[in-house]
Amino acid sequence: MGQLMGGDPSLLRKINQAAVLRALRAAGRGCSLTDLARTTGLSRPTVEGVLDGLARAGLVVETKAAETRAAQSTAADAAGARRLGRPARRFRFRAEAGRLLGVEVGARRISAVLADLAGRRLGEASRGVPPEASAEERLARIEQAARALLGEAGQGAPAPRAVGVGTPGIVGQDGSVALCTALPGWTGLPLGERLRELFGAPVLVENDANAAVLGERWVGAAAGCDDVVMVLAGLSPGAGSLIGGRLHRGHGGAAGEIGALHLLGRQATPERLLATSGTPIDPLDERAVTRVLAAARAGDPRAGEAVARLVERLTHDVAALVLALDPELVVVGGWAAGLDQVVEPLHRELERYCLRAPRVVASALGGGAVATGAVRLALDHLEAELFTVAEVPD
Amino acid sequence: MGQLMGGDPSLLRKINQAAVLRALRAAGRGCSLTDLARTTGLSRPTVEGVLDGLARAGLVVETKAAETRAAQSTAADAAGARRLGRPARRFRFRAEAGRLLGVEVGARRISAVLADLAGRRLGEASRGVPPEASAEERLARIEQAARALLGEAGQGAPAPRAVGVGTPGIVGQDGSVALCTALPGWTGLPLGERLRELFGAPVLVENDANAAVLGERWVGAAAGCDDVVMVLAGLSPGAGSLIGGRLHRGHGGAAGEIGALHLLGRQATPERLLATSGTPIDPLDERAVTRVLAAARAGDPRAGEAVARLVERLTHDVAALVLALDPELVVVGGWAAGLDQVVEPLHRELERYCLRAPRVVASALGGGAVATGAVRLALDHLEAELFTVAEVPD
Repeated sequence: MGQLMGGDPSLLRKINQAAVLRALRAAGRGCSLTDLARTTGLSRPTVEGVLDGLARAGLVVETKAAETRAAQSTAADAAGARRLGRPARRFRFRAEAGRLLGVEVGARRISAVLADLAGRRLGEASRGVPPEASAEERLARIEQAARALLGEAGQGAPAPRAVGVGTPGIVGQDGSVALCTALPGWTGLPLGERLRELFGAPVLVENDANAAVLGERWVGAAAGCDDVVMVLAGLSPGAGSLIGGRLHRGHGGAAGEIGALHLLGRQATPERLLATSGTPIDPLDERAVTRVLAAARAGDPRAGEAVARLVERLTHDVAALVLALDPELVVVGGWAAGLDQVVEPLHRELERYCLRAPRVVASALGGGAVATGAVRLALDHLEAELFTVAEVPD
Repeated sequence: MGQLMGGDPSLLRKINQAAVLRALRAAGRGCSLTDLARTTGLSRPTVEGVLDGLARAGLVVETKAAETRAAQSTAADAAGARRLGRPARRFRFRAEAGRLLGVEVGARRISAVLADLAGRRLGEASRGVPPEASAEERLARIEQAARALLGEAGQGAPAPRAVGVGTPGIVGQDGSVALCTALPGWTGLPLGERLRELFGAPVLVENDANAAVLGERWVGAAAGCDDVVMVLAGLSPGAGSLIGGRLHRGHGGAAGEIGALHLLGRQATPERLLATSGTPIDPLDERAVTRVLAAARAGDPRAGEAVARLVERLTHDVAALVLALDPELVVVGGWAAGLDQVVEPLHRELERYCLRAPRVVASALGGGAVATGAVRLALDHLEAELFTVAEVPD
């Protein structure tokens, strides 16, 4: 253990690079050496060394006078003496130096989001896919949605820097699908490997509910919250959890796969619950749920009863997660996102059953939670990778 | 962030002390400076400095020639040249320099375990207490059990170095009981503070199931396992979880408080389940469960049916935890500990309901799991504290 602290210069360099990159990205338009040294607590030579490495990797550029004149003149007004010297060199992060792709694999739809290296959204695309589609057909739709998006963004579509993917099922550490009951032929698919070949880029595959909770924490309803359970309500419900700010995947990646809970509670399956509304139901068709919810809002008593039972089922699922994990916050997504009919009754029921009930909110990202979380996966990978890339020329 | 790595001499010193203490404790009988320098990777002067500090704090002693003659002569045979020099100085950790106390607070019984500073068991004591006892009566029994034990160990009973406590209910970060439905007057009790005054020592209070999982991981069925759920089966079931080797307490300390799950599943309460056996049941009396289990083993069909329903209830509780957390291992304690009738059916049922079923084993510590875990809590505190104590004279 003593040796661990004996000083690891490469670790120290990575930490310095991370600090400089974060400061640059946070500043947005441009930072002087003095700004960066002050923000990071590093010496000017250290900051210069890190900037050189990042510039050679194409990730940092010295801003032109035109870009920074306004900022400089303001600074100069405040400190007149500087007018006489050479203008301070200023640098900015090149968010346009590459692109990130986030993909949601769904039973009926493939959604893709394109972002720059700062995670800002550049565009989105989606493709319908029949629920009974084979794995190869589904992969082809992923490619179509992604290619359209990468092409639209211009410049002959170079490969993205990283691709994040959210998919139903249990995902192995190597990005393969260990088990998926929702999509035909998906179990056993080396999804990460196939998409790495397709895009020529690193691919991060994650369970869809896990991706969704990352998205909600990044720019959604769970911003700033470290202990979160997100439930993707649907005909095949799943949950993603953050514990201490980190994704809890479980020992075999199956944490939050709560689809079997209603079997244990001997409750009716959701298909049977919905059938009480008199609407014909396709078990994979979330639009059926939407129709029942609309009918309930319009005052149909049978639909109202069906919705009450769906909330009861959801309460049971969420209560099991809350009792096991005791999160600070529960985010409800999937068909229940944004439904006033769901959030309040759910919170009331949790108050009854849980010794300490968490806050309950609806998803802020709605149907976009999984794809947004997939972009965040790509961004996390990029940030880790940038420090290594920047180190190479050093 | 760069400044964090700029070198923290006091952190480095603590890490050095920890390394030396661990090596000394692992060696048991005695270590030479050379041994310690080799094992820890530290220089001889650094090791000597740490030993001086620990010796002044009374935690390390130079072993007498008589204690180490056998070991020395063996070493000397292997390296004849050393016979000519002064015999190497040898040191050992003084586990006898103080004592640790672990306490289990139960509905009908207070159990206490005394251990030395290496965590070795020196003795145990217990006191019965009526389930309806007030908080003050229960505190008095804790004192009686502990005083008997501290007195028995001789030398006019100096205060223990640290006290660990496992109690039903939700425990706050300050060691008070935030909520406890099982013990009268226990909710709101500043348990840690009261026992600190009583023992004149640091007191670490933890939920009983949390203490139990620490005990099983230390010297029980979960040794070497980092992702564990331990269920204390009983009329008021609870669970303790380790995630990545660390206790998962939840945002408000309520993680694993699964007592309400059966209400959600609309299943019969355990009292009603047991009543089907024809045995009169006191809801707080775990001996009632024991009687029904014995009757079932003897072939009583009504008792057999009641046991089947208890296992079904336990399966539901455990499945909810497994689906939420996906642990590597489930340890079953409480009334179900060591029962062949429980572990196998439980595992079979989990295989049916969970996408990835964990291993299921019975508690190795049985009724001693909570008190053993409480000793571990005290030992963890001591280890953290030792490094500070040893630093003072430096």
